[in-house]
Amino acid sequence: MQLTKGFEQAACIMALLATQNRGIPLSSHVIHTRVSSSQTYLKKIMRKLVVGGLITSASGNSGGFSLAREPEDITLLQIVSAVEGKIHTYPNNGLLDLVFSDFKPIATEGNSAINAAFDAADQLWRQELDKVTIYDLLCQTLGTVDVPKVDWNKLQLSPSEQATAIVEKIRTNLRSGR
Amino acid sequence: MQLTKGFEQAACIMALLATQNRGIPLSSHVIHTRVSSSQTYLKKIMRKLVVGGLITSASGNSGGFSLAREPEDITLLQIVSAVEGKIHTYPNNGLLDLVFSDFKPIATEGNSAINAAFDAADQLWRQELDKVTIYDLLCQTLGTVDVPKVDWNKLQLSPSEQATAIVEKIRTNLRSGR
Repeated sequence: MQLTKGFEQAACIMALLATQNRGIPLSSHVIHTRVSSSQTYLKKIMRKLVVGGLITSASGNSGGFSLAREPEDITLLQIVSAVEGKIHTYPNNGLLDLVFSDFKPIATEGNSAINAAFDAADQLWRQELDKVTIYDLLCQTLGTVDVPKVDWNKLQLSPSEQATAIVEKIRTNLRSGR
Repeated sequence: MQLTKGFEQAACIMALLATQNRGIPLSSHVIHTRVSSSQTYLKKIMRKLVVGGLITSASGNSGGFSLAREPEDITLLQIVSAVEGKIHTYPNNGLLDLVFSDFKPIATEGNSAINAAFDAADQLWRQELDKVTIYDLLCQTLGTVDVPKVDWNKLQLSPSEQATAIVEKIRTNLRSGR
C-alpha cells in the first residue's frame, strides 16, 4: 500500500517551487526537464495541484508555475489530498457482503465495523501529515530556518561537482549564522 | 492509496475462521466457494496467513484451515502485515535524488526528511490497527460479547430469507441477555 508515483512527482514539484524566487514563475519546461516524466502525466499532476489551490499557473512568455501560498502554509496532507483525493486504506469492494450474502444484515454491520476501524487509523495518519509543512521539511533538509531561494529557470541541470560544492558552501555559511 | 483486494479476501477468510467451530478445520473448498476468487490467488493469501502465524492448515480427508490463536489475540495490523508486509506509504523511488541530482547531499537529506514524516504517520496508523482485534470486530458486528460458532462446512451458501431470519433470531436472543 503506497501513494502513487504521481505523489512523489508532486513532492518534487513543490520542492522546486518552494525554493524558487518569489515573483518569477517556474517554467513548465524546467519542471519537465528536472522531473523527466511524460509531459501529459506531469500536466495532470500540476492541474491537480492548481485545482487543490496549492500552486498557480500564469500563461504568456514568462509564464509558468508558482506556489499559491507560503511554504509555511502548505502541509504534506494538502499535497496528498490534492493528488490522491481522500484516503481510504480499506479496499471496500463489498466482499464481506458477498461472502456472507446469506447473512446480509450481519455482513453489512461487519463491513461497517471494519471500515470504522480503518477510518480511525486513516484519520490519525492524515492528522500527522497535516502537522508537517513544506517549510518544516526545507528547514530540516537545509539545516537552517533561512531557506535560500534560487531561480531554477536559470540553473542548468548538471551533476557537476561544482554545483554541489557551491551549495555546500551556502549551507555552511547559513549554518554558521551568516 | 489502498490495501490490495487480497487483504479484503484475507479479512473474509479470518471472519469465517473466527466463527468456525473450534476443532473442525474449515475446508478450502468452502473458503473457495464463499470467497469466489481464483483458487491460485486464494492459496497465496492463505499461505501468507499461515506464514504469518495467524492460521494453521491440516492435510488429509477432514483437513482444512483453523485459526492459529484466539480471535482476541489477532489484530487487524497482524492481518495487514501478514498479507502486505510492512507498510511504507511514501513511494520512495528516489525521485528527489534524481530531480536534484546536482545538489546530491541536500537531495538525500530532503529524501530522509519526507520519509521520516511519512514513517511517523504510518506508525500511528499501524498502532491504531494493532488495537483492534478480530474479536472486537465480531462483538461490534453481532452486538454481543458471546460470539456464536458455526460449522461453515455444513452451511450451504444461499441468499435465502430463511437463513437471514434464523441469524436475526440468534442475535435478538443474544442481545436480550439469553
